[in-house]
Amino acid sequence: MTIEPIAWDGDRLRLLDQTLLPVEEAWLELTNHNEVVEAINSMRVRGAPAIGVAGAYGIALAALSSAGSDLDALLTDLRSAADQLIATRPTGVNLAWAVERTLAAAQAAGGLEEARQVALNEALRIQREDIDGNKALGQHGLELVPERATVLTHCNAGALATAGYGTALGVVRAAVEAGKQIDVVATETRPLSQGARLTSWELLRDGIACRLIVDSAAGPLLQRGDADLVVVGADRIAANGDTANKIGTYTIAVLAREHGVPFYVAAPTSTIDMSLPSGDGIAIEERSADEVTKVGGKRIAREDVQVFNPAFDVTPHDLIAAIITERGIARPPFVDALQDLTR
Amino acid sequence: MTIEPIAWDGDRLRLLDQTLLPVEEAWLELTNHNEVVEAINSMRVRGAPAIGVAGAYGIALAALSSAGSDLDALLTDLRSAADQLIATRPTGVNLAWAVERTLAAAQAAGGLEEARQVALNEALRIQREDIDGNKALGQHGLELVPERATVLTHCNAGALATAGYGTALGVVRAAVEAGKQIDVVATETRPLSQGARLTSWELLRDGIACRLIVDSAAGPLLQRGDADLVVVGADRIAANGDTANKIGTYTIAVLAREHGVPFYVAAPTSTIDMSLPSGDGIAIEERSADEVTKVGGKRIAREDVQVFNPAFDVTPHDLIAAIITERGIARPPFVDALQDLTR
Repeated sequence: MTIEPIAWDGDRLRLLDQTLLPVEEAWLELTNHNEVVEAINSMRVRGAPAIGVAGAYGIALAALSSAGSDLDALLTDLRSAADQLIATRPTGVNLAWAVERTLAAAQAAGGLEEARQVALNEALRIQREDIDGNKALGQHGLELVPERATVLTHCNAGALATAGYGTALGVVRAAVEAGKQIDVVATETRPLSQGARLTSWELLRDGIACRLIVDSAAGPLLQRGDADLVVVGADRIAANGDTANKIGTYTIAVLAREHGVPFYVAAPTSTIDMSLPSGDGIAIEERSADEVTKVGGKRIAREDVQVFNPAFDVTPHDLIAAIITERGIARPPFVDALQDLTR
Repeated sequence: MTIEPIAWDGDRLRLLDQTLLPVEEAWLELTNHNEVVEAINSMRVRGAPAIGVAGAYGIALAALSSAGSDLDALLTDLRSAADQLIATRPTGVNLAWAVERTLAAAQAAGGLEEARQVALNEALRIQREDIDGNKALGQHGLELVPERATVLTHCNAGALATAGYGTALGVVRAAVEAGKQIDVVATETRPLSQGARLTSWELLRDGIACRLIVDSAAGPLLQRGDADLVVVGADRIAANGDTANKIGTYTIAVLAREHGVPFYVAAPTSTIDMSLPSGDGIAIEERSADEVTKVGGKRIAREDVQVFNPAFDVTPHDLIAAIITERGIARPPFVDALQDLTR
């Protein structure tokens, strides 16, 4: 069975520590929201939908561990926990969406114990919906995948980036389950190498053929005609279809157009931020220079070099052929299509 | 003074071991051509012009260490050494050019000892010409560099890739020496991270401002308008201007055109292969999967993943604004311009 990186276990959250893959498959046990904040900051859990689910459980853990003696005190604690959780990663939108949704459920409760229970139930529901949504997304994506196809993907928008099954890799899994002949090319995805560490790990684990390339080999791969389509995930999609995703996505989109290869985004509708007219408004997280100057703790550049390390980039909507969601496929003009899907 | 990574020392070749930079500055002492073959294979010396110079010294070392008792026996040994040296790296052309030139000098000698001496003299001359040529190349390139400019470069086409001064970084050095305000953005250049390890090291050593990015951050860098020109080196240039260079060069060329930023190639005329009408004929070396699945000896991907690891790619001539050489600047149509420069 395809891996699910997040599991609720009675009174605690179990998370697969993705920083240790593929060398080690270690599970963390978290019992309060501060540990969830640390896990998101350190990218032990990553991928916009998975971060959303983890954030929802962060609220559930805050509710269970709050010392508040009445509902008001509890809700004050939850608001504080929500703010801390949402502040961890600015670019994705699912995190804020899932945290606020879980908090709102608790706010609607009639009393202290009920609030604790509904917060947990809401987190469980968000997790279930994410997996179900990804399977629906995969089914919608099927029509875009030829019977025999090489799929180029970037970073990890797989089971490990979600509650399970994946978004971009959900489309791949649905195609494989439908009997199509699919192989995947995964880009390494520097600086944190999620393609090398995670995408190739989860695909091979499920018996899906996977080739690994360094990020800059996507150019000659497409030049050789060795990819039929590109599918990537998303961290935030603006109302016009502009899509923030892992650094390197924009470059692949430009190369795909250069070679006439369709470029698709696969993401749950919770990734769509209709409050932003375009990608210009998306905050791009810049991360530590150490991610670039060190690899696996080993220094590869002088300590005094300046570094520009944006974690994400924005792909303009005109490079995107379609956006695949659990509710259907949005095609240009995205302004109307995304409005319809999120109505 | 700018570093020179290759030095002849009486009876031996001293090479800066570039696999250990930037952590350690260690010099190898080589006394026979087999050690030169190993140094090239292991990329202890790398960069097409530097490999050419090392190859020439490989012939000189073979001449000095040959047990042949007459000129014929010596020349047989040198032919064998030349074949071994040329076989190390198939994509660059300077290596074969420099090795054959040194061998031809020995072949024209009148006797055994004279052949030994002229082989060494030819290697010394090739080294000197390379440095002088790079300084001339830098002067020619000056007119393409604005008074204030951010230069994006890829891999290392610097002093470390040549006998000294550099080609792409020779243009940067000439501009800095001419009083222009220059800063450089260096791409990491996976899989072997020459940009992180070498380019930023040699630029900061010379007091030239340098920012480091992962390869896939060149897209958003150009999107932000944060680079005024691109200058890269070359391993082989076909008669029509198609240019083989380090994997990732093609992608940057596509991005540069997308953002209206001029893309320049800087290389000695010994890099131009007029026997090839186009880049289609350039053999692209594929290197070990370990370069991609491991970083600094540490595993980052499952051992059983398939890998596509081309060391170079080919940038079509229509993406190149000019080719800067020690004899002047070639502009489109390159077929005529390169013919003129190599006449």
